[in-house]
Amino acid sequence: MSYLREMILKHGQVFPNNVLKVDSFLNHQIDPIVIEEIEKEFYKYFGDRSITKVLTIESSGIAPALLVAHHLGVPMLFAKKAEPSTLAKEDKYVTSVHSYTKNVTSNVLISKEYLSANDKVLIIDDFLANGQAALGLVDLVEQAGGETVGVGICIEKSFQPGRQYLEAKGVDVFSICRIQSLENGKVTFLNE
Amino acid sequence: MSYLREMILKHGQVFPNNVLKVDSFLNHQIDPIVIEEIEKEFYKYFGDRSITKVLTIESSGIAPALLVAHHLGVPMLFAKKAEPSTLAKEDKYVTSVHSYTKNVTSNVLISKEYLSANDKVLIIDDFLANGQAALGLVDLVEQAGGETVGVGICIEKSFQPGRQYLEAKGVDVFSICRIQSLENGKVTFLNE
Repeated sequence: MSYLREMILKHGQVFPNNVLKVDSFLNHQIDPIVIEEIEKEFYKYFGDRSITKVLTIESSGIAPALLVAHHLGVPMLFAKKAEPSTLAKEDKYVTSVHSYTKNVTSNVLISKEYLSANDKVLIIDDFLANGQAALGLVDLVEQAGGETVGVGICIEKSFQPGRQYLEAKGVDVFSICRIQSLENGKVTFLNE
Repeated sequence: MSYLREMILKHGQVFPNNVLKVDSFLNHQIDPIVIEEIEKEFYKYFGDRSITKVLTIESSGIAPALLVAHHLGVPMLFAKKAEPSTLAKEDKYVTSVHSYTKNVTSNVLISKEYLSANDKVLIIDDFLANGQAALGLVDLVEQAGGETVGVGICIEKSFQPGRQYLEAKGVDVFSICRIQSLENGKVTFLNE
């Protein structure tokens, strides 16, 4: 069993509306062994795809994205939720992302300088549920004319449609842990 | 010359009000060589201090904090700007941080679960200017009864009072690059 799965079973807490709290090792506090396993798993799956850039979204995607970018020896880029004062309107790609957990739609952006038609981009995020964040990142790569070589996810809620939406766009999705159900406060994994 | 200093001279952009934009290698896109140097410098300076936890604040502190935590083999914890729905009021430490760049004061918080009186904490951030973020993090460690063993900064604006405020509280501050002035759009380092 993967260490991440072990940590989810041991320390993950299920809240109403299919919220899985993993603050003690992934989302607020980052466990050094969990993050190392995540890096290795993503590298093993995506390492041979000539990736030029790893893209994520602030804040909780940064930690998993950074280590795999470091291992690949390429830059890591994170989409920002707030507008930097130093970025002119014409200099950025913007997409809108809906969060079902927080029930709010917000713009996220990246500077045009850092993503181009030559980029082969690996998208990384902590969770995949309804896929809105990942689809937004795929859209940013498309706006730049680049190629999304895949989406790497730490924890996938496989009972929600995020993976389907991404696969319908031809995106290869790899998730370290796939959760089949959070019913009755219990975490059940796919392929147990 | 350190690689970070070289990148600041080559790619850093000075904006009005002493804003130094380092988005191309530290704050939005993260350069893999810059971040590796940062990790090594922090490890060299703080590595022997029995650190139990690395603390930073979202979002741009996460990347430098994560790698040094990973090298030390300890958890990295980041203070959050938004309230997680899964955290009860009594379960968190809260401090207020003023941003002079954005001219806004906001609360940042950590869960009480992840910081205790036994912790020896290394605080990491990308910038030190007026010291408000770092002082807020020191305050969170104090609330938990823990010990701040030091503050590690990637880029210090030494013409602003952040370092003085921290040193007045007895905190050891180590900065990889210390900037003496951003006058006339030109970056001048201390000890050039």
